[in-house]
Amino acid sequence: MTRGRFITFEGTEGVGKSTQLANAAEILRDLGVDVIVTREPGGTPMAEAIRELLLAPRDEPVHELTELLLMFAARAQHLYGQILPALERGQWVLCDRFTDATFAYQGGGRGVSRDRIAQLETLVQGDIRPDHVVLLDAPVEIGMARARHRGDLDRFEQEVTAFFERIRNTYLERALEAPHRFHIVDASRNLSEVTADVSQIVRAIVARER
Amino acid sequence: MTRGRFITFEGTEGVGKSTQLANAAEILRDLGVDVIVTREPGGTPMAEAIRELLLAPRDEPVHELTELLLMFAARAQHLYGQILPALERGQWVLCDRFTDATFAYQGGGRGVSRDRIAQLETLVQGDIRPDHVVLLDAPVEIGMARARHRGDLDRFEQEVTAFFERIRNTYLERALEAPHRFHIVDASRNLSEVTADVSQIVRAIVARER
Repeated sequence: MTRGRFITFEGTEGVGKSTQLANAAEILRDLGVDVIVTREPGGTPMAEAIRELLLAPRDEPVHELTELLLMFAARAQHLYGQILPALERGQWVLCDRFTDATFAYQGGGRGVSRDRIAQLETLVQGDIRPDHVVLLDAPVEIGMARARHRGDLDRFEQEVTAFFERIRNTYLERALEAPHRFHIVDASRNLSEVTADVSQIVRAIVARER
Repeated sequence: MTRGRFITFEGTEGVGKSTQLANAAEILRDLGVDVIVTREPGGTPMAEAIRELLLAPRDEPVHELTELLLMFAARAQHLYGQILPALERGQWVLCDRFTDATFAYQGGGRGVSRDRIAQLETLVQGDIRPDHVVLLDAPVEIGMARARHRGDLDRFEQEVTAFFERIRNTYLERALEAPHRFHIVDASRNLSEVTADVSQIVRAIVARER
């Protein structure tokens, strides 16, 4: 039994992660790959309950460390309860966000030190990292306009544009530091072009790694 | 303005922490000390919501790292949102459980490595530690019998006796390593004797430190 591949989809609000995850899953299934689709924070009932806590708008200011630790609490539950068992069964795992999002949102966005996040990453994950990261990149105003169309904004979506600019820049910096792992897709184009790019990336991964 | 003192009450289930916290608070108030009483996990609305997540019995096995990170997430929120501001205002803070409980329950009880807990303690608290710890110590079967009388058991109280034996032993080891900070009270005696001991400890702290 070959271990499955762990592929994450990253990007700021409204860049089309859900759509491209569904597209990638369909391509993989057509190629005969056994695949599961999941998301962070979340992916198990307990991790989804932690997600609710994180995303609910509230009067009490949430300390940056609280947010960071809740993210990793949900991640530990998801990783050991769902992702790793699936990979070990040979399934491929497509995940909407993972630790790169923590570096981007809590690090770049909130200003939590990169060292602190890296320390928690090692504590929770050991040396487990996604095999591939599809980064859907678009100027912040494009994504925000799309996200606003979807309705109510959660606690993250209520942040100002500068917050999302820092997140986008952190994603791009991380992609440049790990080009073997990251696939940057220009998500400012129309849907069919983005879908074609993501499809090609997914087919190339399968051709090379299965 | 003198900084307040941070005093925690520790011990296994049913040793009488709540009763002795109330007793200590009354003595402090009688001595003219401005005091707040709080508890872990909890102490703020968000931290109490994390507490609910932690204590609710559930079908999904909770990974030991998830539990550990949730404890420290609640602690970060409580410490920076409530405890530190109170201490800085000059109030004394009496807290039902703190990080010594994490070493005892998640470390001694669940077998999470002490290094891992210490790493999170430093990450979240820096060098903040309770000024005094009142450890109410009793044989496990005495406390468990009292806890059972109170009604439904939560996810922790459903554990077997050996789990609580390890917790009790970890508390005692920690107390022996830091005798300047820990006050061990034999909580197997009757209520009036335990109350008299705790009262004396509290009066001595005030006499020496205020």
